[in-house]
Amino acid sequence: MTTSAPEPDCLFCLIVAGEVPSTIVARTENVVAFEDINPSAPMHVLVVPTTHHGDVSQLAAAAPDVLAELVGVAEQVAGERADGQFRLIFNSGPHAGQTVFHVHAHVLGGTQLGALVG
Amino acid sequence: MTTSAPEPDCLFCLIVAGEVPSTIVARTENVVAFEDINPSAPMHVLVVPTTHHGDVSQLAAAAPDVLAELVGVAEQVAGERADGQFRLIFNSGPHAGQTVFHVHAHVLGGTQLGALVG
Repeated sequence: MTTSAPEPDCLFCLIVAGEVPSTIVARTENVVAFEDINPSAPMHVLVVPTTHHGDVSQLAAAAPDVLAELVGVAEQVAGERADGQFRLIFNSGPHAGQTVFHVHAHVLGGTQLGALVG
Repeated sequence: MTTSAPEPDCLFCLIVAGEVPSTIVARTENVVAFEDINPSAPMHVLVVPTTHHGDVSQLAAAAPDVLAELVGVAEQVAGERADGQFRLIFNSGPHAGQTVFHVHAHVLGGTQLGALVG
């Protein structure tokens, strides 16, 4: 989806709206960060735009400033919890491991991270 | 470094300038993509801005449009080589595995990718 309208069946749209519970760790005008419920590292936060875009390519094409804001929030959270060091991952498509089709960055840190591919 | 001036000792500035050999796979006005010399997946390309920024946070703060252009190039390469599906990774800091301090996205695909953290 390239629309920025809320999607009633989108888990992350519902989290942004507060209709599905989550542990919010940061919020700006256009971005929300919350804990991954199945963390892969001591810090494992998801950062999403409040508007709905299917993947990082769609977000980059539609709203470069929101993509930059998202990176800024990742940096802010990592500054508080991981000495400012973090891995930022966007998965685009099922082969890359994307399971929720509202663009989200995984922000991982708090330990020495290993290889790129699991 | 937050400057966008070329850094004489920066490996990726030298690759961008053609002074260190690489296998270039895409080039736009502000972005160059080239093969990772130690690939972790069938497609493993690095995408860098032609100007020097130390990490993704610095790029996002200084040049959101170039960050978006970089994502567009990743999408283009994945469209040619991995059915448009890809994992995009930015490592910020040594704990995240960053070894070259000129921002670069790892673009991985061409197989079913596994867990997020190695």
